[in-house]
Amino acid sequence: MVVASQSLEELCINSIRFLAIDAVQKANSGHPGLPMGAAPMAFVLWDRFLRFNPKNPQWINRDRFVLSAGHGCMLQYALLHLMGYDSVSIEDIQQFRQWESKTPGHPENFVTEGVEVTTGPLGQGIANGVGLAMAEAHLGAMFNKPDAEIVDHYTYVVLGDGCNMEGISGEACSLAGHLGLGKLIALYDDNHISIDGSTNLSFTEDVGKRFEAYGWHVQHVEDGNNDLEGIHKAIEAAKAVTDQPSLIKVTTIIGFGSPNKANSHDVHGAALGDAEVAATREHLGWNYDPFVVPDDALAHFRKAIERGASYEAEWNQAFATYKTKYPEDAALFERMISGKLPANWEQCLPTYTPESKKDATRNQSGATLNAIAATLPELFGGSADLAPSNKTLIKGEGDFQKGNYAARNLRFGVREHGMGAICNGIALHNSGLLPYGATFLVFTDYMRNAIRLSALSRAGVIWVMTHDSIGLGEDGPTHQPVEHIASLRMIPDLIVLRPADGNETSAAYKVAVERAKGIDGKPQPSLLALSRQGLPNLPGSTIDKAVKGAYVLSDSDGTPELILIGTGGELYLCAEAAEKLRAEGKKVRVVSMPSWELFEEQDATYQESVLPASVTKRLAVEAGVSFGWGRYAGTEANTITVNTFGVSSPGDVALTKFGFTVENIVAKAKAL
Amino acid sequence: MVVASQSLEELCINSIRFLAIDAVQKANSGHPGLPMGAAPMAFVLWDRFLRFNPKNPQWINRDRFVLSAGHGCMLQYALLHLMGYDSVSIEDIQQFRQWESKTPGHPENFVTEGVEVTTGPLGQGIANGVGLAMAEAHLGAMFNKPDAEIVDHYTYVVLGDGCNMEGISGEACSLAGHLGLGKLIALYDDNHISIDGSTNLSFTEDVGKRFEAYGWHVQHVEDGNNDLEGIHKAIEAAKAVTDQPSLIKVTTIIGFGSPNKANSHDVHGAALGDAEVAATREHLGWNYDPFVVPDDALAHFRKAIERGASYEAEWNQAFATYKTKYPEDAALFERMISGKLPANWEQCLPTYTPESKKDATRNQSGATLNAIAATLPELFGGSADLAPSNKTLIKGEGDFQKGNYAARNLRFGVREHGMGAICNGIALHNSGLLPYGATFLVFTDYMRNAIRLSALSRAGVIWVMTHDSIGLGEDGPTHQPVEHIASLRMIPDLIVLRPADGNETSAAYKVAVERAKGIDGKPQPSLLALSRQGLPNLPGSTIDKAVKGAYVLSDSDGTPELILIGTGGELYLCAEAAEKLRAEGKKVRVVSMPSWELFEEQDATYQESVLPASVTKRLAVEAGVSFGWGRYAGTEANTITVNTFGVSSPGDVALTKFGFTVENIVAKAKAL
Repeated sequence: MVVASQSLEELCINSIRFLAIDAVQKANSGHPGLPMGAAPMAFVLWDRFLRFNPKNPQWINRDRFVLSAGHGCMLQYALLHLMGYDSVSIEDIQQFRQWESKTPGHPENFVTEGVEVTTGPLGQGIANGVGLAMAEAHLGAMFNKPDAEIVDHYTYVVLGDGCNMEGISGEACSLAGHLGLGKLIALYDDNHISIDGSTNLSFTEDVGKRFEAYGWHVQHVEDGNNDLEGIHKAIEAAKAVTDQPSLIKVTTIIGFGSPNKANSHDVHGAALGDAEVAATREHLGWNYDPFVVPDDALAHFRKAIERGASYEAEWNQAFATYKTKYPEDAALFERMISGKLPANWEQCLPTYTPESKKDATRNQSGATLNAIAATLPELFGGSADLAPSNKTLIKGEGDFQKGNYAARNLRFGVREHGMGAICNGIALHNSGLLPYGATFLVFTDYMRNAIRLSALSRAGVIWVMTHDSIGLGEDGPTHQPVEHIASLRMIPDLIVLRPADGNETSAAYKVAVERAKGIDGKPQPSLLALSRQGLPNLPGSTIDKAVKGAYVLSDSDGTPELILIGTGGELYLCAEAAEKLRAEGKKVRVVSMPSWELFEEQDATYQESVLPASVTKRLAVEAGVSFGWGRYAGTEANTITVNTFGVSSPGDVALTKFGFTVENIVAKAKAL
Repeated sequence: MVVASQSLEELCINSIRFLAIDAVQKANSGHPGLPMGAAPMAFVLWDRFLRFNPKNPQWINRDRFVLSAGHGCMLQYALLHLMGYDSVSIEDIQQFRQWESKTPGHPENFVTEGVEVTTGPLGQGIANGVGLAMAEAHLGAMFNKPDAEIVDHYTYVVLGDGCNMEGISGEACSLAGHLGLGKLIALYDDNHISIDGSTNLSFTEDVGKRFEAYGWHVQHVEDGNNDLEGIHKAIEAAKAVTDQPSLIKVTTIIGFGSPNKANSHDVHGAALGDAEVAATREHLGWNYDPFVVPDDALAHFRKAIERGASYEAEWNQAFATYKTKYPEDAALFERMISGKLPANWEQCLPTYTPESKKDATRNQSGATLNAIAATLPELFGGSADLAPSNKTLIKGEGDFQKGNYAARNLRFGVREHGMGAICNGIALHNSGLLPYGATFLVFTDYMRNAIRLSALSRAGVIWVMTHDSIGLGEDGPTHQPVEHIASLRMIPDLIVLRPADGNETSAAYKVAVERAKGIDGKPQPSLLALSRQGLPNLPGSTIDKAVKGAYVLSDSDGTPELILIGTGGELYLCAEAAEKLRAEGKKVRVVSMPSWELFEEQDATYQESVLPASVTKRLAVEAGVSFGWGRYAGTEANTITVNTFGVSSPGDVALTKFGFTVENIVAKAKAL
């Protein structure tokens, strides 16, 4: 193909392509193929449909755009730059994939303003998109009035073959279809190429038919390389369907324009090479130097600045009117988008005394969630089909369903991974919604990447994980977490909390809610590990102490000879064992340690006051692996833990057989 | 419903139902609803179609049955007992869900003979079933002759709504459709109830249409409670379709027969209670005491013993003929199903000297896989669409595809979790096939439950995980594993290996292959963590030393003052740092530690010889979290590790910035 002269639109589309080509070539690393193929659909979407304000990327009513095929991030960086975002300069593009650049190897919302969510791990983005659309639907139902719609935007997702192969996308899209999320529009870059080669190797299903089966509205643009009007009409048609999410399958050629590498996996994940870059310039009639954008194209793109300013001004006007008419709603809306909590919100948290009913922390979690729900209208979550077991239903609230988007109980179905990414999407809508997602602790294994991404991308989510040890009993080793608590503690920036009783459960929520809202503007997810079995409320536990991560639950006079460290369901055993040891004249301290991460944040003086370095006789008791307990117990040998898979049996039998008894703690303590 | 008299089939079906009802009631724990609803389809399948020998559950050519909805395990235990398996006596059923019983809370293949795979975590079983069917197809293509078919069986799966909601089932079933696995037949217990309540809450997609989109043959039996002939005909029709897997949607009533709890989630996961058990007896006209099976029913069921013996005898005859005609093939087949390796197989493993080419361990892994493939025809695996990156292609082999089932390269597509469970299914076919599955190490997060289940269920799989640290570079924190190696080390019974060079990579495969085949009859999975970046081949590394998990790579004379412990890509830095320190007169030992688990298996004398207790100055260097390193380094402070998320940048820059340099090791060593 020799292009004698290019239309303005071709010039714009090729500007996107060559920014991607040149950035990947300069870095000698990256994925040029997707941006080259998807540039036309992205151009049509961003130029003609997407409502955003480049000079205020956080404008609350913007349309959300998610590049689920995150490896194609140069597409997004090119668009952000061309459209006039300050976050991506041409110099930033030249620093693609370099240390501390604004243009990392996959889109990272915490690095680059204008990027809504962190993608790259395939399928996460489309599931985040479902969460963003659910957030929009819920906020709309919460706040919109017949005469004033202040929340009214679309969520657009570009996803590829890889996203569509991942199970997580199926989970989230099945739910999106069920919920009838009409403002979710996904463009499927159907380029038939993945890393292994042609999708004929492993992926020949009828994707459109599958999405129809989910309840989506499905269209097909056969020539996604050239048919801009076809793309335009399809997006218009998708917007017109208000009670179903839309999939627009856009068939493209990966690496479009590269004469020797297009339509092959060579162009997927590697720089084209100097020769092929030159050949592509020739082929597409592109006579500009690297990183040069033709003036006409740039001028056209930058119209987005004025357009965006007027969108936001219009909205500001509408919101001002809304505020006059509905001051209370407006105040709540403003409080929510500020990321702030109401004053003294924590007074809603239940407190307990040793006389309070012996109960499972999952039940206390349920009570706390309900208490919070009454104080924080932004609470919005649910379980992956384990609501009766996870105790996550908000009483008196309906279910979030098509036609009932104001309700706050989410029914995720048996879709843990989808739930995880949906919660991340809700949190990263950045409108103050406070999502929680629940399942059995062992099934964090089904959603671990989403939990990790919540920490990486600063998504303020509360993960409510019940049935947290072999103490769950009869369901057996497939359902009994053993390594999970430790393995979650090592995820950076995730707060793991394993409360031992009611007060500690309230403390866990105090932390989780405040971290979800963010300290220093950085929201942070927390994960709660909660017992199935009943536990006593312990003398000495308080919310204020527990939020420090570890504290002295009970002590003998003077310097202790031994410190018993317990967490969660095993703490009360430590407390009882200490009583027995004290009765024998031993000086014993009991330390409750609901959260390693929080304890690590305390100053050295506090840490020393709880775990004095001079007291080296220590015994940690936790119904999980010993791995890592050397940090506090001195060595992993000084523990009563579980280092094998569990066994199906009644929970008390399992705990006893594995050594979680007062007698065994006393015996092991004496042996020290 | 009052049943005046029951047909023999009704008697049989109700026998299944009441064994489940009574066992759950006695345990006061379990899931009666599925067995009650699925008993008719299970009866038709086991009584009229399933080919097995109760007295030899390991008969190699048996049909495989998988209860993917594993919580309904009393269905399977009842069938095993009724059909005459010795593994499940009536006393075993009375011990349902008790400590060390043969009837745990979910089906466990390592506990109960006749159970093929371990299910319970939803969706795993159907994906295992895809693996079982792939194993059958591959073995058939390997061994069958036009005049002698020795591998020819079906794989039947019963799955529920929960399985169908999980993404893993979508992944595996999409691949199964692509591969056209005609001998895979899944019965979908469409009972419209999950734990939260009606599937209307979250799951209203058209499942049949979705499976059609995957390329499956789909049928619907509308009255799965009564229409035994409909079920029969559907299974017959499914068998007649030889180039597509089949889904038979069987609409049932969960808890069928319970007058007050049927068709509700109350009957899903809890005992019926004495009153409702009595009411159900009344309703179904069941006048037998708990755990009593009517003689007529038992006599009918037990015909399976004779039938099974004749199936096996017939096959033995066929195999004898095969052996005469094709002695070499027969010898291989026998060797494979014996679980044994050929003598001296390990001589195929490549060895290296310090003069060998500097290379990434992922490349050395690829070379090793190819060397093994030439020696072990049972090697059978691939990657989740990262073959060019994971280096997992067997050269000269085609791709396992419809029409080419003899080929050994598996193309899983971007379906990590599905791949995991498929590999488990291939291993648990117990025919000697040696599966491997590959992706980036960070994406173990997508398939963690399948990896865990490989360890729990003793599936001899090799997990090939490349790009094992921040050293992978530009792809950034979404792709850079940090906590993964440590978090995998803590999965019980999984061997994690992080080789440092070519010899250690060969050692890793020596271990992985031998463990996959099993020691003392217990196969065990291994996981290899391999570098993207090139590494030197180190003086002092050998296969024999590396298989011990840790060994002295280099040493100074006399007792060392300091021990540097390195793994994988960081070992060579330790070796270079030691040289510098020795040049300054320091006595330094370098310990290579490719596998914690293997080192823990060594005797105390060996352990002490490598890491003498008296040498307390230690520094561990690993590009992952410090969590747990206190075990060998004394404290986690004595490490150079990564405790935050990584960063997108060239890999060498990232490693340098995070302190993985000879200079930093020397400096930190001196500070000790």
